[in-house]
Amino acid sequence: MMIETVMDWDKLQYNFQHEARHLDLNISVDCVLFTIRNNGINVLLINSFHYKEYALPGGFVRKDEETDSAASRILYQRTGVERIFLKQFKVFSEPGRFSFKSFGKNMGLKEGMESKGVDFPERVISIGYFALVNFESIHPDGGEYSEDTTWADIHKLPALLFDHALIVKEGADALRRELFFKPVLHNLLPEQFTMPELQHLYEIILERRMDRGSFQRKMKEWDIFDRLEEKRSGVAHKRPFLYKINQEKFDKALEQGRLFGI
Amino acid sequence: MMIETVMDWDKLQYNFQHEARHLDLNISVDCVLFTIRNNGINVLLINSFHYKEYALPGGFVRKDEETDSAASRILYQRTGVERIFLKQFKVFSEPGRFSFKSFGKNMGLKEGMESKGVDFPERVISIGYFALVNFESIHPDGGEYSEDTTWADIHKLPALLFDHALIVKEGADALRRELFFKPVLHNLLPEQFTMPELQHLYEIILERRMDRGSFQRKMKEWDIFDRLEEKRSGVAHKRPFLYKINQEKFDKALEQGRLFGI
Repeated sequence: MMIETVMDWDKLQYNFQHEARHLDLNISVDCVLFTIRNNGINVLLINSFHYKEYALPGGFVRKDEETDSAASRILYQRTGVERIFLKQFKVFSEPGRFSFKSFGKNMGLKEGMESKGVDFPERVISIGYFALVNFESIHPDGGEYSEDTTWADIHKLPALLFDHALIVKEGADALRRELFFKPVLHNLLPEQFTMPELQHLYEIILERRMDRGSFQRKMKEWDIFDRLEEKRSGVAHKRPFLYKINQEKFDKALEQGRLFGI
Repeated sequence: MMIETVMDWDKLQYNFQHEARHLDLNISVDCVLFTIRNNGINVLLINSFHYKEYALPGGFVRKDEETDSAASRILYQRTGVERIFLKQFKVFSEPGRFSFKSFGKNMGLKEGMESKGVDFPERVISIGYFALVNFESIHPDGGEYSEDTTWADIHKLPALLFDHALIVKEGADALRRELFFKPVLHNLLPEQFTMPELQHLYEIILERRMDRGSFQRKMKEWDIFDRLEEKRSGVAHKRPFLYKINQEKFDKALEQGRLFGI
Protein backbone atom coordinates (compact mmCIF):
# COMPACT_ATOMS: atom_id res chain seq x y z
CA MET A 1 0.00 0.00 0.00
CA MET A 2 1.32 3.42 -0.93
CA ILE A 3 1.75 5.93 1.85
CA GLU A 4 0.55 9.50 1.53
CA THR A 5 3.41 10.58 3.68
CA VAL A 6 2.75 14.17 4.54
CA MET A 7 -0.93 13.91 5.27
CA ASP A 8 -0.62 10.84 7.46
CA TRP A 9 2.41 12.21 9.18
CA ASP A 10 0.56 15.31 10.34
CA LYS A 11 -2.46 13.25 11.28
CA LEU A 12 -0.36 10.94 13.38
CA GLN A 13 1.32 13.81 15.18
CA TYR A 14 -2.00 15.48 15.85
CA ASN A 15 -3.59 12.25 17.04
CA PHE A 16 -0.74 11.42 19.35
CA GLN A 17 -0.67 14.80 21.08
CA HIS A 18 -4.45 14.83 21.34
CA GLU A 19 -4.59 11.30 22.72
CA ALA A 20 -1.55 11.41 25.00
CA ARG A 21 -3.42 12.54 28.10
CA HIS A 22 -5.66 9.48 27.85
CA LEU A 23 -2.71 7.13 27.51
CA ASP A 24 -0.51 5.36 30.01
CA LEU A 25 2.69 6.50 28.34
CA ASN A 26 4.80 3.97 30.19
CA ILE A 27 2.69 0.95 29.27
CA SER A 28 2.58 -0.26 25.69
CA VAL A 29 1.59 -3.46 23.92
CA ASP A 30 3.21 -5.08 20.91
CA CYS A 31 1.34 -7.59 18.77
CA VAL A 32 3.18 -10.50 17.21
CA LEU A 33 0.97 -11.97 14.50
CA PHE A 34 2.35 -15.21 13.12
CA THR A 35 1.37 -17.11 10.03
CA ILE A 36 2.87 -19.96 8.05
CA ARG A 37 4.04 -19.06 4.59
CA ASN A 38 6.76 -20.27 2.23
CA ASN A 39 7.64 -23.11 4.60
CA GLY A 40 8.46 -20.77 7.45
CA ILE A 41 6.97 -18.91 10.38
CA ASN A 42 6.22 -15.37 9.24
CA VAL A 43 5.47 -12.30 11.37
CA LEU A 44 3.46 -9.22 10.44
CA LEU A 45 5.53 -6.02 10.41
CA ILE A 46 4.83 -2.36 9.81
CA ASN A 47 7.08 -0.10 7.81
CA SER A 48 5.97 3.26 8.95
CA PHE A 49 6.68 6.72 7.52
CA HIS A 50 10.16 7.78 8.48
CA TYR A 51 11.01 4.62 10.40
CA LYS A 52 14.38 3.34 9.41
CA GLU A 53 13.42 0.01 10.89
CA TYR A 54 10.38 -2.16 10.59
CA ALA A 55 8.27 -2.55 13.71
CA LEU A 56 5.64 -4.73 15.31
CA PRO A 57 2.14 -3.25 15.40
CA GLY A 58 2.18 -1.68 18.85
CA GLY A 59 1.11 1.33 20.84
CA PHE A 60 0.28 2.79 24.23
CA VAL A 61 -2.44 1.49 26.51
CA ARG A 62 -5.25 3.89 27.41
CA LYS A 63 -5.64 4.72 31.09
CA ASP A 64 -9.18 3.33 31.05
CA GLU A 65 -8.63 0.05 29.24
CA GLU A 66 -7.18 -3.35 30.05
CA THR A 67 -4.09 -4.39 28.19
CA ASP A 68 -6.01 -7.21 26.43
CA SER A 69 -8.43 -4.70 24.91
CA ALA A 70 -5.55 -2.38 24.10
CA ALA A 71 -3.86 -5.12 22.09
CA SER A 72 -6.98 -5.70 19.95
CA ARG A 73 -7.57 -1.98 19.47
CA ILE A 74 -3.98 -1.25 18.52
CA LEU A 75 -3.71 -4.18 16.16
CA TYR A 76 -6.82 -2.89 14.41
CA GLN A 77 -5.62 0.71 14.32
CA ARG A 78 -2.22 -0.20 12.95
CA THR A 79 -3.14 -2.99 10.52
CA GLY A 80 -6.92 -3.10 10.04
CA VAL A 81 -6.91 -6.68 11.34
CA GLU A 82 -9.64 -7.50 13.84
CA ARG A 83 -11.36 -10.37 15.65
CA ILE A 84 -8.11 -12.14 16.42
CA PHE A 85 -7.57 -13.77 19.82
CA LEU A 86 -4.32 -12.27 21.04
CA LYS A 87 -2.55 -14.01 23.89
CA GLN A 88 -0.40 -12.17 26.41
CA PHE A 89 3.00 -13.84 26.66
CA LYS A 90 5.66 -11.66 28.29
CA VAL A 91 6.50 -8.24 29.67
CA PHE A 92 9.55 -6.43 28.28
CA SER A 93 10.90 -3.93 30.78
CA GLU A 94 14.61 -3.43 30.25
CA PRO A 95 15.10 0.25 31.29
CA GLY A 96 16.88 1.26 28.06
CA ARG A 97 14.57 -0.60 25.68
CA PHE A 98 12.62 2.40 24.44
CA SER A 99 13.55 6.01 23.88
CA PHE A 100 10.97 8.75 23.44
CA LYS A 101 13.53 10.72 21.52
CA SER A 102 13.94 8.10 18.81
CA PHE A 103 10.24 7.31 19.02
CA GLY A 104 9.42 10.92 18.24
CA LYS A 105 11.89 10.97 15.38
CA ASN A 106 10.56 7.70 14.03
CA MET A 107 7.06 9.10 14.12
CA GLY A 108 8.26 12.13 12.24
CA LEU A 109 7.55 14.43 15.17
CA LYS A 110 9.49 17.66 15.24
CA GLU A 111 11.84 18.58 18.06
CA GLY A 112 10.15 20.12 21.05
CA MET A 113 7.61 17.32 21.44
CA GLU A 114 8.36 17.40 25.18
CA SER A 115 7.17 20.96 25.50
CA LYS A 116 3.64 20.23 24.25
CA GLY A 117 2.35 19.40 27.73
CA VAL A 118 3.06 15.70 27.45
CA ASP A 119 4.99 14.26 30.38
CA PHE A 120 7.26 11.54 29.08
CA PRO A 121 8.20 8.70 31.41
CA GLU A 122 11.77 7.47 31.71
CA ARG A 123 10.92 3.90 30.86
CA VAL A 124 8.23 2.26 28.77
CA ILE A 125 7.39 -1.38 29.35
CA SER A 126 5.76 -3.38 26.63
CA ILE A 127 3.44 -6.32 27.02
CA GLY A 128 3.84 -8.84 24.22
CA TYR A 129 0.79 -10.49 22.65
CA PHE A 130 0.80 -13.14 19.97
CA ALA A 131 -1.60 -14.99 17.69
CA LEU A 132 -1.28 -17.58 14.95
CA VAL A 133 -3.47 -16.71 11.99
CA ASN A 134 -4.39 -18.18 8.65
CA PHE A 135 -2.65 -16.20 5.96
CA GLU A 136 -5.67 -16.47 3.65
CA SER A 137 -8.15 -15.15 6.20
CA ILE A 138 -6.62 -11.83 7.19
CA HIS A 139 -5.98 -8.80 5.07
CA PRO A 140 -3.76 -6.18 6.71
CA ASP A 141 -4.44 -2.80 5.16
CA GLY A 142 -2.23 -0.55 7.25
CA GLY A 143 -5.08 0.63 9.45
CA GLU A 144 -5.84 4.21 10.40
CA TYR A 145 -2.51 5.59 9.29
CA SER A 146 -2.30 3.61 6.05
CA GLU A 147 1.08 2.29 7.02
CA ASP A 148 2.86 -0.25 4.92
CA THR A 149 2.56 -3.80 6.25
CA THR A 150 4.58 -6.84 5.30
CA TRP A 151 5.11 -10.45 6.33
CA ALA A 152 8.66 -11.51 7.12
CA ASP A 153 10.17 -14.90 7.89
CA ILE A 154 11.26 -14.89 11.56
CA HIS A 155 14.69 -16.17 10.55
CA LYS A 156 15.15 -13.48 7.90
CA LEU A 157 13.93 -10.40 9.72
CA PRO A 158 14.82 -6.91 8.51
CA ALA A 159 16.25 -4.50 11.11
CA LEU A 160 13.54 -3.99 13.74
CA LEU A 161 12.77 -1.04 15.99
CA PHE A 162 13.84 -1.09 19.68
CA ASP A 163 13.77 -4.64 21.12
CA HIS A 164 11.18 -5.91 18.64
CA ALA A 165 13.48 -8.69 17.37
CA LEU A 166 13.61 -10.05 20.93
CA ILE A 167 9.82 -9.76 21.21
CA VAL A 168 9.41 -11.79 17.98
CA LYS A 169 11.79 -14.47 19.27
CA GLU A 170 10.05 -14.77 22.62
CA GLY A 171 6.68 -14.74 20.85
CA ALA A 172 7.70 -17.70 18.69
CA ASP A 173 8.74 -19.61 21.83
CA ALA A 174 5.38 -18.81 23.40
CA LEU A 175 3.58 -20.00 20.25
CA ARG A 176 5.39 -23.34 20.39
CA ARG A 177 4.60 -23.80 24.06
CA GLU A 178 0.97 -22.88 23.56
CA LEU A 179 0.56 -25.53 20.87
CA PHE A 180 0.90 -28.23 23.50
CA PHE A 181 -2.17 -26.90 25.27
CA LYS A 182 -4.22 -26.02 22.22
CA PRO A 183 -3.29 -27.69 18.95
CA VAL A 184 -4.88 -25.23 16.53
CA LEU A 185 -2.74 -25.98 13.52
CA HIS A 186 -5.69 -27.44 11.62
CA ASN A 187 -6.96 -23.85 11.49
CA LEU A 188 -4.16 -23.18 9.05
CA LEU A 189 -5.28 -25.99 6.76
CA PRO A 190 -8.39 -26.48 4.65
CA GLU A 191 -11.34 -27.97 6.55
CA GLN A 192 -10.30 -31.38 5.29
CA PHE A 193 -6.62 -32.15 5.47
CA THR A 194 -4.21 -35.07 5.28
CA MET A 195 -1.82 -36.22 7.99
CA PRO A 196 1.24 -35.31 5.90
CA GLU A 197 -0.14 -31.77 5.58
CA LEU A 198 -0.64 -31.50 9.34
CA GLN A 199 2.80 -32.97 10.00
CA HIS A 200 4.38 -30.48 7.62
CA LEU A 201 2.90 -27.59 9.64
CA TYR A 202 4.17 -29.06 12.91
CA GLU A 203 7.62 -29.45 11.42
CA ILE A 204 7.68 -25.82 10.34
CA ILE A 205 6.55 -24.46 13.67
CA LEU A 206 8.54 -26.75 15.96
CA GLU A 207 11.48 -26.54 13.58
CA ARG A 208 12.33 -30.21 13.64
CA ARG A 209 11.67 -33.20 11.39
CA MET A 210 9.32 -35.88 12.64
CA ASP A 211 8.93 -39.55 11.92
CA ARG A 212 5.83 -40.13 9.81
CA GLY A 213 4.74 -43.28 11.64
CA SER A 214 5.07 -41.90 15.13
CA PHE A 215 3.44 -38.62 14.13
CA GLN A 216 0.38 -40.45 12.87
CA ARG A 217 0.24 -42.69 15.96
CA LYS A 218 0.34 -39.58 18.13
CA MET A 219 -2.49 -37.94 16.18
CA LYS A 220 -4.56 -41.10 16.60
CA GLU A 221 -3.91 -41.10 20.35
CA TRP A 222 -5.18 -37.54 20.60
CA ASP A 223 -8.53 -38.78 19.32
CA ILE A 224 -9.74 -35.38 18.12
CA PHE A 225 -9.81 -36.02 14.36
CA ASP A 226 -12.30 -37.99 12.25
CA ARG A 227 -11.00 -39.89 9.26
CA LEU A 228 -13.25 -39.35 6.25
CA GLU A 229 -14.38 -41.85 3.63
CA GLU A 230 -12.86 -39.87 0.77
CA LYS A 231 -9.17 -39.63 0.09
CA ARG A 232 -7.23 -36.70 -1.27
CA SER A 233 -7.59 -36.69 -5.03
CA GLY A 234 -5.04 -35.55 -7.56
CA VAL A 235 -2.10 -37.38 -6.01
CA ALA A 236 -0.23 -39.73 -8.30
CA HIS A 237 -0.34 -43.18 -6.70
CA LYS A 238 -0.96 -43.46 -2.97
CA ARG A 239 -3.85 -41.13 -2.18
CA PRO A 240 -3.72 -40.17 1.51
CA PHE A 241 -6.76 -40.19 3.78
CA LEU A 242 -8.54 -36.96 4.57
CA TYR A 243 -9.29 -35.91 8.14
CA LYS A 244 -11.31 -33.23 9.81
CA ILE A 245 -11.49 -32.04 13.37
CA ASN A 246 -14.15 -33.59 15.60
CA GLN A 247 -15.26 -30.39 17.27
CA GLU A 248 -17.01 -32.10 20.18
CA LYS A 249 -14.01 -34.22 21.10
CA PHE A 250 -11.67 -31.28 20.56
CA ASP A 251 -13.65 -28.99 22.88
CA LYS A 252 -13.86 -31.70 25.51
CA ALA A 253 -10.12 -32.32 25.39
CA LEU A 254 -9.43 -28.63 25.87
CA GLU A 255 -11.89 -28.43 28.73
CA GLN A 256 -10.19 -31.37 30.46
CA GLY A 257 -6.88 -29.59 30.07
CA ARG A 258 -5.48 -32.47 28.04
CA LEU A 259 -1.99 -32.02 26.63
CA PHE A 260 -0.93 -32.31 23.02
CA GLY A 261 2.77 -33.04 23.28
CA ILE A 262 4.54 -34.11 20.18
CA MET B 1 6.18 -12.49 64.32
CA MET B 2 4.94 -9.62 66.47
CA ILE B 3 4.63 -6.26 64.83
CA GLU B 4 5.93 -3.10 66.46
CA THR B 5 3.11 -1.20 64.89
CA VAL B 6 3.96 2.44 65.38
CA MET B 7 7.62 2.28 64.55
CA ASP B 8 7.18 0.21 61.40
CA TRP B 9 4.26 2.28 60.34
CA ASP B 10 6.27 5.49 60.39
CA LYS B 11 9.21 3.80 58.75
CA LEU B 12 7.01 2.52 55.94
CA GLN B 13 5.47 5.93 55.35
CA TYR B 14 8.87 7.59 55.36
CA ASN B 15 10.34 5.00 53.02
CA PHE B 16 7.49 5.20 50.57
CA GLN B 17 7.57 8.96 50.26
CA HIS B 18 11.34 8.95 50.04
CA GLU B 19 11.35 6.21 47.40
CA ALA B 20 8.34 7.27 45.34
CA ARG B 21 10.28 9.41 42.87
CA HIS B 22 12.41 6.40 41.93
CA LEU B 23 9.37 4.20 41.38
CA ASP B 24 7.13 3.58 38.40
CA LEU B 25 3.97 4.13 40.41
CA ASN B 26 1.78 2.54 37.76
CA ILE B 27 3.76 -0.66 37.46
CA SER B 28 3.80 -3.13 40.32
CA VAL B 29 4.65 -6.79 40.77
CA ASP B 30 2.95 -9.36 42.97
CA CYS B 31 4.71 -12.56 43.99
CA VAL B 32 2.75 -15.78 44.37
CA LEU B 33 4.89 -18.23 46.33
CA PHE B 34 3.38 -21.68 46.39
CA THR B 35 4.27 -24.63 48.55
CA ILE B 36 2.65 -27.98 49.33
CA ARG B 37 1.48 -28.38 52.89
CA ASN B 38 -1.30 -30.29 54.63
CA ASN B 39 -2.26 -32.01 51.37
CA GLY B 40 -2.97 -28.76 49.60
CA ILE B 41 -1.39 -25.97 47.57
CA ASN B 42 -0.53 -23.15 49.95
CA VAL B 43 0.35 -19.55 49.14
CA LEU B 44 2.46 -17.09 51.13
CA LEU B 45 0.52 -14.06 52.36
CA ILE B 46 1.34 -10.94 54.28
CA ASN B 47 -0.86 -9.53 56.98
CA SER B 48 0.39 -6.02 57.20
CA PHE B 49 -0.20 -3.35 59.83
CA HIS B 50 -3.62 -1.87 59.36
CA TYR B 51 -4.59 -4.04 56.41
CA LYS B 52 -8.01 -5.47 56.87
CA GLU B 53 -7.16 -8.02 54.21
CA TYR B 54 -4.20 -10.26 53.66
CA ALA B 55 -2.08 -9.52 50.62
CA LEU B 56 0.49 -11.05 48.32
CA PRO B 57 4.06 -9.77 48.75
CA GLY B 58 4.07 -7.01 46.15
CA GLY B 59 5.28 -3.53 45.42
CA PHE B 60 6.22 -0.93 42.81
CA VAL B 61 8.88 -1.39 40.19
CA ARG B 62 11.79 1.07 40.24
CA LYS B 63 12.25 3.19 37.14
CA ASP B 64 15.73 1.76 36.63
CA GLU B 65 15.04 -1.94 37.09
CA GLU B 66 13.47 -4.72 35.05
CA THR B 67 10.33 -6.28 36.43
CA ASP B 68 12.11 -9.61 36.98
CA SER B 69 14.62 -7.95 39.32
CA ALA B 70 11.82 -6.00 40.95
CA ALA B 71 10.02 -9.22 41.81
CA SER B 72 13.09 -10.67 43.54
CA ARG B 73 13.83 -7.43 45.38
CA ILE B 74 10.26 -6.97 46.55
CA LEU B 75 9.85 -10.57 47.66
CA TYR B 76 13.00 -10.15 49.75
CA GLN B 77 11.94 -6.80 51.19
CA ARG B 78 8.50 -8.03 52.12
CA THR B 79 9.28 -11.55 53.34
CA GLY B 80 13.04 -11.97 53.73
CA VAL B 81 12.92 -14.80 51.18
CA GLU B 82 15.64 -14.73 48.54
CA ARG B 83 17.29 -16.77 45.79
CA ILE B 84 13.98 -18.00 44.41
CA PHE B 85 13.40 -18.21 40.65
CA LEU B 86 10.21 -16.25 40.10
CA LYS B 87 8.41 -16.73 36.82
CA GLN B 88 6.35 -14.01 35.17
CA PHE B 89 2.89 -15.34 34.34
CA LYS B 90 0.33 -12.61 33.66
CA VAL B 91 -0.38 -8.88 33.69
CA PHE B 92 -3.36 -7.62 35.67
CA SER B 93 -4.60 -4.32 34.31
CA GLU B 94 -8.31 -3.91 35.01
CA PRO B 95 -8.65 -0.11 35.44
CA GLY B 96 -10.43 -0.32 38.82
CA ARG B 97 -8.19 -3.02 40.30
CA PHE B 98 -6.15 -0.78 42.56
CA SER B 99 -6.94 2.39 44.46
CA PHE B 100 -4.27 4.67 45.87
CA LYS B 101 -6.80 5.86 48.41
CA SER B 102 -7.31 2.43 49.94
CA PHE B 103 -3.63 1.64 49.42
CA GLY B 104 -2.71 4.67 51.51
CA LYS B 105 -5.19 3.71 54.19
CA ASN B 106 -3.99 0.14 54.21
CA MET B 107 -0.44 1.34 54.63
CA GLY B 108 -1.54 3.46 57.54
CA LEU B 109 -0.72 6.67 55.71
CA LYS B 110 -2.53 9.75 56.89
CA GLU B 111 -4.79 11.79 54.62
CA GLY B 112 -3.02 14.25 52.41
CA MET B 113 -0.63 11.69 50.95
CA GLU B 114 -1.35 13.18 47.54
CA SER B 115 -0.03 16.57 48.56
CA LYS B 116 3.46 15.33 49.42
CA GLY B 117 4.73 15.79 45.89
CA VAL B 118 3.88 12.31 44.74
CA ASP B 119 1.92 12.17 41.50
CA PHE B 120 -0.44 9.22 41.66
CA PRO B 121 -1.46 7.50 38.44
CA GLU B 122 -5.07 6.62 37.71
CA ARG B 123 -4.35 2.96 37.17
CA VAL B 124 -1.73 0.56 38.47
CA ILE B 125 -1.03 -2.62 36.55
CA SER B 126 0.51 -5.56 38.31
CA ILE B 127 2.72 -8.23 36.83
CA GLY B 128 2.20 -11.59 38.50
CA TYR B 129 5.19 -13.81 39.33
CA PHE B 130 5.06 -17.28 40.81
CA ALA B 131 7.38 -19.92 42.22
CA LEU B 132 6.94 -23.34 43.77
CA VAL B 133 9.13 -23.71 46.86
CA ASN B 134 9.98 -26.36 49.38
CA PHE B 135 8.27 -25.48 52.64
CA GLU B 136 11.25 -26.68 54.68
CA SER B 137 13.81 -24.62 52.80
CA ILE B 138 12.41 -21.12 53.11
CA HIS B 139 11.84 -19.08 56.21
CA PRO B 140 9.76 -15.96 55.67
CA ASP B 141 10.54 -13.44 58.37
CA GLY B 142 8.42 -10.50 57.30
CA GLY B 143 11.34 -8.68 55.67
CA GLU B 144 12.22 -5.03 56.15
CA TYR B 145 8.95 -4.03 57.70
CA SER B 146 8.65 -7.07 59.98
CA GLU B 147 5.24 -7.81 58.58
CA ASP B 148 3.34 -10.89 59.61
CA THR B 149 3.51 -13.69 57.03
CA THR B 150 1.38 -16.79 56.80
CA TRP B 151 0.73 -19.73 54.47
CA ALA B 152 -2.85 -20.29 53.39
CA ASP B 153 -4.49 -23.08 51.41
CA ILE B 154 -5.51 -21.66 48.01
CA HIS B 155 -8.99 -23.09 48.48
CA LYS B 156 -9.40 -21.58 51.95
CA LEU B 157 -8.04 -18.09 51.41
CA PRO B 158 -8.84 -15.28 53.83
CA ALA B 159 -10.15 -12.01 52.35
CA LEU B 160 -7.38 -10.66 50.08
CA LEU B 161 -6.50 -7.12 49.08
CA PHE B 162 -7.55 -5.75 45.66
CA ASP B 163 -7.60 -8.51 43.00
CA HIS B 164 -5.06 -10.68 44.81
CA ALA B 165 -7.47 -13.64 44.96
CA LEU B 166 -7.62 -13.59 41.15
CA ILE B 167 -3.82 -13.34 40.97
CA VAL B 168 -3.51 -16.43 43.21
CA LYS B 169 -5.98 -18.37 41.04
CA GLU B 170 -4.22 -17.45 37.79
CA GLY B 171 -0.87 -18.21 39.42
CA ALA B 172 -2.00 -21.72 40.33
CA ASP B 173 -3.09 -22.29 36.72
CA ALA B 174 0.32 -21.08 35.52
CA LEU B 175 2.05 -23.42 37.99
CA ARG B 176 0.12 -26.41 36.64
CA ARG B 177 0.95 -25.49 33.03
CA GLU B 178 4.60 -24.96 33.84
CA LEU B 179 4.90 -28.44 35.33
CA PHE B 180 4.50 -29.95 31.87
CA PHE B 181 7.62 -28.16 30.72
CA LYS B 182 9.67 -28.56 33.88
CA PRO B 183 8.65 -31.29 36.30
CA VAL B 184 10.28 -29.98 39.45
CA LEU B 185 8.08 -31.71 41.98
CA HIS B 186 10.97 -33.88 43.17
CA ASN B 187 12.38 -30.67 44.63
CA LEU B 188 9.58 -30.82 47.17
CA LEU B 189 10.59 -34.34 48.24
CA PRO B 190 13.67 -35.69 50.00
CA GLU B 191 16.58 -36.46 47.68
CA GLN B 192 15.41 -40.05 47.58
CA PHE B 193 11.70 -40.58 47.16
CA THR B 194 9.18 -43.24 46.25
CA MET B 195 6.80 -43.22 43.30
CA PRO B 196 3.74 -43.05 45.60
CA GLU B 197 5.23 -39.93 47.22
CA LEU B 198 5.78 -38.29 43.82
CA GLN B 199 2.29 -39.30 42.67
CA HIS B 200 0.79 -37.82 45.82
CA LEU B 201 2.38 -34.44 45.00
CA TYR B 202 1.09 -34.55 41.43
CA GLU B 203 -2.39 -35.34 42.68
CA ILE B 204 -2.34 -32.38 45.04
CA ILE B 205 -1.13 -29.91 42.45
CA LEU B 206 -3.16 -31.08 39.47
CA GLU B 207 -6.13 -31.69 41.79
CA ARG B 208 -7.10 -35.05 40.37
CA ARG B 209 -6.57 -38.68 41.33
CA MET B 210 -4.30 -40.80 39.18
CA ASP B 211 -4.03 -44.49 38.50
CA ARG B 212 -0.96 -45.91 40.20
CA GLY B 213 0.01 -48.20 37.34
CA SER B 214 -0.23 -45.63 34.58
CA PHE B 215 1.51 -42.99 36.73
CA GLN B 216 4.49 -45.27 37.22
CA ARG B 217 4.58 -46.20 33.52
CA LYS B 218 4.60 -42.51 32.65
CA MET B 219 7.48 -41.80 35.05
CA LYS B 220 9.42 -44.67 33.52
CA GLU B 221 8.82 -43.25 30.02
CA TRP B 222 10.21 -39.89 31.11
CA ASP B 223 13.50 -41.64 31.83
CA ILE B 224 14.83 -38.98 34.18
CA PHE B 225 14.86 -40.96 37.43
CA ASP B 226 17.25 -43.66 38.66
CA ARG B 227 15.85 -46.49 40.73
CA LEU B 228 18.10 -47.19 43.71
CA GLU B 229 19.10 -50.51 45.23
CA GLU B 230 17.64 -49.66 48.63
CA LYS B 231 13.95 -49.57 49.37
CA ARG B 232 12.10 -47.26 51.73
CA SER B 233 12.45 -48.66 55.23
CA GLY B 234 9.94 -48.48 58.01
CA VAL B 235 6.95 -49.49 55.92
CA ALA B 236 4.98 -52.47 57.23
CA HIS B 237 4.98 -55.04 54.42
CA LYS B 238 5.60 -53.96 50.85
CA ARG B 239 8.57 -51.62 50.93
CA PRO B 240 8.51 -49.36 47.88
CA PHE B 241 11.57 -48.65 45.75
CA LEU B 242 13.47 -45.42 46.20
CA TYR B 243 14.26 -43.15 43.25
CA LYS B 244 16.39 -40.13 42.67
CA ILE B 245 16.67 -37.69 39.82
CA ASN B 246 19.29 -38.39 37.17
CA GLN B 247 20.54 -34.84 36.78
CA GLU B 248 22.24 -35.41 33.45
CA LYS B 249 19.16 -36.93 31.83
CA PHE B 250 16.92 -34.32 33.42
CA ASP B 251 19.01 -31.40 32.13
CA LYS B 252 19.15 -32.95 28.67
CA ALA B 253 15.39 -33.45 28.56
CA LEU B 254 14.82 -29.81 29.50
CA GLU B 255 17.32 -28.67 26.92
CA GLN B 256 15.53 -30.66 24.22
CA GLY B 257 12.26 -29.05 25.25
CA ARG B 258 10.74 -32.43 26.07
CA LEU B 259 7.27 -32.40 27.56
CA PHE B 260 6.17 -33.97 30.80
CA GLY B 261 2.46 -34.41 30.32
CA ILE B 262 0.60 -36.52 32.81
